[in-house]
Amino acid sequence: MLLSKLFIPITKDLPAEAKIKSHQLMLRTGMIRQSSAGIYSWLPLGFKVMKKIEKIVREEQNNIGAQEMLMPTIQSSDIWKESGRYDDYGEEMLRISDRQNREMLYGPTNEEQITEIFRSSVKSYKLLPQIFYHIQWKFRDELRPRFGVMRCREFYMKDAYSFDLNENEAVLSYNKMFYAYLKTFKRLGLRSIPMKAETGPIGGDLSHEFIILADTGESKIYTDKRIFNISTDKYSNDSNSLKKMRDDFSKFYAVTDDKFNQEDFNKKVNKGDQLETKGIEVGHIFYFGDKYSKPMNCTVDSKDGKKTFVKMGSYGVGVSRLVAAIIEAKYVNDKMKWPKSVAPFDVVIIPSINKKDMSNLEKALKVYNDLRNKGIDVLLDDIEESITNKFKKHDLLGIPYQIIIGSKITQDKFEFKESDKEAEITDINKIIKILKK
Amino acid sequence: MLLSKLFIPITKDLPAEAKIKSHQLMLRTGMIRQSSAGIYSWLPLGFKVMKKIEKIVREEQNNIGAQEMLMPTIQSSDIWKESGRYDDYGEEMLRISDRQNREMLYGPTNEEQITEIFRSSVKSYKLLPQIFYHIQWKFRDELRPRFGVMRCREFYMKDAYSFDLNENEAVLSYNKMFYAYLKTFKRLGLRSIPMKAETGPIGGDLSHEFIILADTGESKIYTDKRIFNISTDKYSNDSNSLKKMRDDFSKFYAVTDDKFNQEDFNKKVNKGDQLETKGIEVGHIFYFGDKYSKPMNCTVDSKDGKKTFVKMGSYGVGVSRLVAAIIEAKYVNDKMKWPKSVAPFDVVIIPSINKKDMSNLEKALKVYNDLRNKGIDVLLDDIEESITNKFKKHDLLGIPYQIIIGSKITQDKFEFKESDKEAEITDINKIIKILKK
Repeated sequence: MLLSKLFIPITKDLPAEAKIKSHQLMLRTGMIRQSSAGIYSWLPLGFKVMKKIEKIVREEQNNIGAQEMLMPTIQSSDIWKESGRYDDYGEEMLRISDRQNREMLYGPTNEEQITEIFRSSVKSYKLLPQIFYHIQWKFRDELRPRFGVMRCREFYMKDAYSFDLNENEAVLSYNKMFYAYLKTFKRLGLRSIPMKAETGPIGGDLSHEFIILADTGESKIYTDKRIFNISTDKYSNDSNSLKKMRDDFSKFYAVTDDKFNQEDFNKKVNKGDQLETKGIEVGHIFYFGDKYSKPMNCTVDSKDGKKTFVKMGSYGVGVSRLVAAIIEAKYVNDKMKWPKSVAPFDVVIIPSINKKDMSNLEKALKVYNDLRNKGIDVLLDDIEESITNKFKKHDLLGIPYQIIIGSKITQDKFEFKESDKEAEITDINKIIKILKK
Repeated sequence: MLLSKLFIPITKDLPAEAKIKSHQLMLRTGMIRQSSAGIYSWLPLGFKVMKKIEKIVREEQNNIGAQEMLMPTIQSSDIWKESGRYDDYGEEMLRISDRQNREMLYGPTNEEQITEIFRSSVKSYKLLPQIFYHIQWKFRDELRPRFGVMRCREFYMKDAYSFDLNENEAVLSYNKMFYAYLKTFKRLGLRSIPMKAETGPIGGDLSHEFIILADTGESKIYTDKRIFNISTDKYSNDSNSLKKMRDDFSKFYAVTDDKFNQEDFNKKVNKGDQLETKGIEVGHIFYFGDKYSKPMNCTVDSKDGKKTFVKMGSYGVGVSRLVAAIIEAKYVNDKMKWPKSVAPFDVVIIPSINKKDMSNLEKALKVYNDLRNKGIDVLLDDIEESITNKFKKHDLLGIPYQIIIGSKITQDKFEFKESDKEAEITDINKIIKILKK
């Protein structure tokens, strides 16, 4: 992509409500634009990052055998009345009357809808276990939406639902998702901690939040830092290994402030291993048994022919929220610092250009085409402005690698720089090798 | 994918309202499930097809330099009041009050929203031309939603918007999109005819509908069949070639029944070239100048420093509708017949299985893994049922190729069949070669 063609409408005068860094940086780099309170448009740069996150989330769901589908945004109130949540949900649910005065709503979550689909078609234990997921827009009519896309009203979420015959098997589905989440957040360049959590309005008896570390996080967290030594790589997607994984994580103290107890902390964690920091919730998983299947009469025939309520769990990852969460976790000195896996571009080429001498731009275009032909997602800054301004701009954008085409280059060597590291003078083949890694 | 794991909840008792073939077939093959009137869930099989269509639509938008972004589904009524369409739009617009009693709506289209984004950030002709697109859910509160996803309330659509300094350049943007649409529909395996159209509620003075041929189509069409001899391949994305393309298409008579005139038809088209058939609208493009930029005061500074209203066009493709439209255009004798580009799977392996002899299933699993390793999207029917039932089921599903593992196979040769063609006995390497084409 040529920067001169890329639509990055930068917000220069930050609105007063842009209080946190990710919100400010997303506006300053033209990633999003507010459409109305708590509702945002995703402009090309923000859209690209969100799609890269979505792809990683999707791949890790597929890897554990979850099947993708897509439920609509607008739901009938009927199924919510069946489950008993229609009244419970309160004003955060966006309620709608259609032209025929039917009570509809914009789905804040999909337990009811997936249960309805499941009960209408699955009758036998033979089709279990099943895990379904979809990645769809949701709406929560927050009274005070804030922090940009971190706490907005219309948000993009991956939600998955598991169906099992009994609790044992349901815990296996739960563990699979636990595993998929650890892998997902790792690929996103994040350090995540699974924490035992309250089940809240979803209900049920087993739940974990996945919290990522960020100094500016909303939740205070207290943990044993040895939890970070657990390597996800040593587990595999089978029941024994997954059980071991859950056991290994549960050995370490890790709580948010609502559950924190200083005495407990001191007793369970050596002073030297204690870590008090902040974090952002990016995922939440629940096992809730027959909380929905019972009121909605969702049964299957078990082996002995008896009707059994299916045992369900649900599993959410905030895809749009993750864009902001990654910025909060990674930014350095007021500048973005994108992990390679989700950066809006793999690399940016920055030629020093002036009206009298276009030779650097020509060289840059050649490199640009070479890299594109290798399947590398490259941005070329073809705008005529001072190199100082260019550096400022690209430091702010935080693309992981820069190729600088200025006075230091020779016929076939370029200045190549990984963000926050020293530049080196090297040739295109080595650059391609590093970028393809 | 193993068929035993795939969630295909087949609707056996078709509802009375499933009157057209695509609706029936989508229910019979478990592609969709109705959630409420005119609102559908996309189950795994339907979801896969829709995503493949979306990918082709996206690639052809990118090929003409359109930039992808994503606007929210819920809009404020304010911008619709500015354009003057809030009252015009009538009951088809799903109107919503949020908890603070602000007037919101579920976007049926996005001219206002994109104009608002554009006017707030682009001030100079230097940033023109621009084409933006997004692929997002829309809602039209149809009084009588019908024909399944063909005329539903919540639907998935690609809508693009062009911004130009003057009419000449705007027509170039229009022609680019015309070109992208021809290429898109061709890749989807469809024969499309661009027809001069009324501009309707969008307004403006230049408009084409893209109609695909289908015996069961909603519109009657009258055309000179020589229009199908025009090969899209001979045009390229530059202004002269695109002008020639538009001229070439306009030479041939092609109208829907609202514009049909028998005398005209006979005068302009030789009897032997006359084609009367039916079609389905799958795309619609509009040039409407300053219809929105003027009331919404969206201007740029032109070269001579004067403020000019930008000249806009909008361009829609019904992505969810296309799933049904492709079925209508392609089905044969009550069975699906998917074009290779959007088939839910590239190939299905059908082993004849019985309890006493699992050797065919073992062979099938080996072929399955070989094909998957080559990046081929393959379905394996691992279900134990009679081969006759299997054939019936797979004829209905319409996957383009079948590998049959029954009595006719030898150690390294398999029965390989393209739908509607004779089977041949061949080896895995030749099969891979054909599937990778």
